[in-house]
Amino acid sequence: MISKKMQSLVNNNSVIRQMFEEGRNMAREFGEENVYDFSLGNPNVPAPEKVRETAVSILENEDPLYIHGYMNNAGYPEVRRKVADSLNKRFGTAFHENNIMMTVGAASGLNCVLKALINPGEEVLTFAPYFVEYKNYVSNYDGVLNTVNTDHQSFQPDLSDLEDKIGKDTRALIINSPNNPTGVIYSEDTIKGIAEILRKKQDEYGTEIFLISDEPYRELVYTDAEVPYVTKYYDNTIVCYSFSKTLSLPGERIGYLVIPDEAADQEDLFSAVTIANRVLGCVNAPSLFQKVVAECLDEKADIAFYKRNRDKIYDALTSYGFQCVKPEGAFYLFIKTPVDDKEFAAEAKKEHILVVPGSSFALGGFVRLSYCVSYETIVNSLPGFKRLSEHYKLG
Amino acid sequence: MISKKMQSLVNNNSVIRQMFEEGRNMAREFGEENVYDFSLGNPNVPAPEKVRETAVSILENEDPLYIHGYMNNAGYPEVRRKVADSLNKRFGTAFHENNIMMTVGAASGLNCVLKALINPGEEVLTFAPYFVEYKNYVSNYDGVLNTVNTDHQSFQPDLSDLEDKIGKDTRALIINSPNNPTGVIYSEDTIKGIAEILRKKQDEYGTEIFLISDEPYRELVYTDAEVPYVTKYYDNTIVCYSFSKTLSLPGERIGYLVIPDEAADQEDLFSAVTIANRVLGCVNAPSLFQKVVAECLDEKADIAFYKRNRDKIYDALTSYGFQCVKPEGAFYLFIKTPVDDKEFAAEAKKEHILVVPGSSFALGGFVRLSYCVSYETIVNSLPGFKRLSEHYKLG
Repeated sequence: MISKKMQSLVNNNSVIRQMFEEGRNMAREFGEENVYDFSLGNPNVPAPEKVRETAVSILENEDPLYIHGYMNNAGYPEVRRKVADSLNKRFGTAFHENNIMMTVGAASGLNCVLKALINPGEEVLTFAPYFVEYKNYVSNYDGVLNTVNTDHQSFQPDLSDLEDKIGKDTRALIINSPNNPTGVIYSEDTIKGIAEILRKKQDEYGTEIFLISDEPYRELVYTDAEVPYVTKYYDNTIVCYSFSKTLSLPGERIGYLVIPDEAADQEDLFSAVTIANRVLGCVNAPSLFQKVVAECLDEKADIAFYKRNRDKIYDALTSYGFQCVKPEGAFYLFIKTPVDDKEFAAEAKKEHILVVPGSSFALGGFVRLSYCVSYETIVNSLPGFKRLSEHYKLG
Repeated sequence: MISKKMQSLVNNNSVIRQMFEEGRNMAREFGEENVYDFSLGNPNVPAPEKVRETAVSILENEDPLYIHGYMNNAGYPEVRRKVADSLNKRFGTAFHENNIMMTVGAASGLNCVLKALINPGEEVLTFAPYFVEYKNYVSNYDGVLNTVNTDHQSFQPDLSDLEDKIGKDTRALIINSPNNPTGVIYSEDTIKGIAEILRKKQDEYGTEIFLISDEPYRELVYTDAEVPYVTKYYDNTIVCYSFSKTLSLPGERIGYLVIPDEAADQEDLFSAVTIANRVLGCVNAPSLFQKVVAECLDEKADIAFYKRNRDKIYDALTSYGFQCVKPEGAFYLFIKTPVDDKEFAAEAKKEHILVVPGSSFALGGFVRLSYCVSYETIVNSLPGFKRLSEHYKLG
């Protein structure tokens, strides 16, 4: 009964989401405290208190017709102006309301962008490993997602491979820094290097190649590393932002797109993403939370909590002999597995430890741990990790 | 720069939305009270007080990690159970949580259904006039939307035309009762007639043909007419519901799908719509408002307000010589125009009256008025309508 395109998705339902369901089932069977579920990026730090205060205040003081009503498909103009002003203050940019479209999270924003840009058969590139949904998003519009290598020690982009891979049908490159699943951050030099290659290839092919910067983890940084604001380095940049991690609001589905004036055919492109938002059925980003986030642009969830988790689990696992790059941002560890990653994940499950095989991110031989869990989950999981290390003689 | 598919949409941006923007501009120029904007279905009755109370209470008393976190892509299980229980109580059905998927409004729900069902080139039928976005939704999945006639006096479906139009590639029929743009309700006999034809054609072609019932206006009924619950008449039914009009929450983007156990391959189909919700980037319906609507299933916005509007504008316009069917539900009048509908809409604009040409609903020679406006807007618009009637010598 199902469409052919969806049938294959039903057959290969997201491993991550399956593990989420399995984690819930195991928690019921063995008790919540005896299952160490590192499978999903569901923040364990509550939203800042100001989110609650703002939402309550809006509900109690503003006109319900206005706070729950339709507005422009791009979002409330005053919300978009506040987002633009905040970015301008932080990054020295010069955005205005018609550079900003409020979205149903970054995932929906990415879909609007891809629907606006991609013709059937056209190529989108991304660095592997990558957030597995990119492939599905590109496939929604009959595009083809191909991967570019990273260095498997540092997980920094392989720029010479990028240069080789870009062809005349390449419409876009998706980058994600701080990165899911590796936690690495791309430096200013890296962004400059990417921009230079894209400009060169645009000239070579006479095309416009968009740099889509997926930035749900922008604020989650644990070192003094800078996360460069990509629009400053390359004109055809589109930023996809989400408040899911910054404000711990993943269920509320609220984010925004930035399409700078410098992008090719900016007005048409902005119309196209706005219409895509409408015809894909989102219509607009949820109205109350547009107004809430506009008042919380300087807030963020407690980063110290994630940093403590990162330090604890990174130090423990490396002391047991596991190998992984020390993440500078996001809330993931990407660990080299001593055996096949699916086999390792199955072995870990015997310890009630749930991790996602790297093959789900287009890079086998690694597993991803989401450390956005309680500190106790990390502490209590360590004996299990130690036994795994002994099992595989890593020590 | 824009994809070919989007370029045509950018060129033909929604007339309704354009008028919404134009209405805003005219309101700025001439003053809010001097513009009579009947173009958009943006409710003018505030959400019931219980919506506010419930939202505030959840924000003040429940764990922010739970109320703003990720859940199953289909929605919170307890919310889906409450929706199922409420439907069962009202309609004598036997739904359970795995028949209900919470959606980002009915529009997004329809997209998930169409993505789950339609292969490129397959046909979806609907009765004309129809909500113009259906065509875009079907086109998102490379399906073809074709229309079936209605009687242009009563706007009831022409069942013999339906029987003629269904072919071997017909995957679905979308119905919408109470109807946008005509306000008519399909009786039980009509639903039985549709069901009989669909069953006959399923047998004839050996196919499964889905009846997609788009029901954002289900609760907006001004007579004693019953709106039959369609799953009771036809197994392959999918209901798309929205709280946008019932609870006056259009900006919050909250609704649900019903896929009954009787539908062909129900479990696969339910998986497919859930995965479609994920890969289209919605991921889940906004979490706080899932929990709010679950506590407000017996609430509805003030229907008496809309009924008063309906009676006032219908009585006045027919007394001026305009012809239209008296709407039993929704909040639209579909008025026969004495000249070409676009010409009439342009003439009405001179009176600061904004209406949408019927050609935007695939039926020229009519205009749609949304009477979900303030009573004063209706009263103050009447002299303009009277002058239009005199201009066209309708009296």
